[in-house]
Amino acid sequence: MEGAGLAESGRGRERVELIARTAVRVIAREGLRGLTHRAVDRAAGLPDGSTSYHARTRARLLEITLEHMAAEEQQALTAFFADAPPTRTEAARLLAEFVHTSVHTSAERTLARFELALEASRRPELRRIYDRAGARFRDTAEATLRGLGSPAPERHTRSLIAWCEGMVLDSVAGAGTAAPPTLDDLHTGAAELLNALLPPLPQ
Amino acid sequence: MEGAGLAESGRGRERVELIARTAVRVIAREGLRGLTHRAVDRAAGLPDGSTSYHARTRARLLEITLEHMAAEEQQALTAFFADAPPTRTEAARLLAEFVHTSVHTSAERTLARFELALEASRRPELRRIYDRAGARFRDTAEATLRGLGSPAPERHTRSLIAWCEGMVLDSVAGAGTAAPPTLDDLHTGAAELLNALLPPLPQ
Repeated sequence: MEGAGLAESGRGRERVELIARTAVRVIAREGLRGLTHRAVDRAAGLPDGSTSYHARTRARLLEITLEHMAAEEQQALTAFFADAPPTRTEAARLLAEFVHTSVHTSAERTLARFELALEASRRPELRRIYDRAGARFRDTAEATLRGLGSPAPERHTRSLIAWCEGMVLDSVAGAGTAAPPTLDDLHTGAAELLNALLPPLPQ
Repeated sequence: MEGAGLAESGRGRERVELIARTAVRVIAREGLRGLTHRAVDRAAGLPDGSTSYHARTRARLLEITLEHMAAEEQQALTAFFADAPPTRTEAARLLAEFVHTSVHTSAERTLARFELALEASRRPELRRIYDRAGARFRDTAEATLRGLGSPAPERHTRSLIAWCEGMVLDSVAGAGTAAPPTLDDLHTGAAELLNALLPPLPQ
């Protein structure tokens, strides 16, 4: 939690979180092009000028939005991987649930996260926030794969994250959106992938 | 090739292609927010008003851009999978090369494609173009997996495409951009995935 915005306390802090949460919704629905201080004021039901007061610049608005999302994803990640270390079967289930939740329960946050990922390719200050959040996810995945006996944890982490991200992207914005994968399909797919990466289980 | 724009012939058609190609670059560098008719005129070195002449509305500009990208990707896909059906080893190599090319040679087109995929989640007319292009890719992948003996070609196609898309996204805009995967890594990863999906090869 860095920067003036999120260092505010009490009511100011709640206000910043409302702004960030609303910005996620605006980005998901209208793209980054639709994200203006005024659009956030209106969507949040705040008086004109509120968003500008807490996030002077557009860059700052993007930052507090991404910081908010990163904190939420961190909470979700911790909740999903609370009881370490999972068995291979549990890991497949957790991955499937994580993808399923990203596609269904958190579709707006997911869309906004992809928008900000692309924007981060053009904005080093966003890149840093995105990478910090990504590193936590990556570290958790790598520790899990290592615990499960992966012989190449770094490369396998990349494969695993690619599969998850690709499944999520394809489900919210890809040509496969007509029929997003069921939880069962995701479970089978995650198990297949883990079996590909990890040594054979003892019979 | 649909719509008035791409139905033009000769010089008009070349102009439309220049506009579409330039729009890809503008989107990659500045996001959809930076995409205006005037920005395309300037980046293409065309007289003011040229882009408006060939694509009256913003929606039409997005359409000709996506149609152009879809046609290019179709060409690339055909080139990659020209000699059907590939063996499993060849398929792993082709997938690795496809991802590698998307990340390196065609990074701008790749970034623009993801931007338009997200925009398509909000615009049914783009969705249709995107889905048509995606279906060609999907059909090629499914036919290949079927030819290689996949027992669940539809689900496996989804996994394979997710892995490719995730690898590409992570390499151009994810937290893993610091060190994009090498061609060797991609080759190993694609082979692992195919081995996970397909029946064991005879020893």
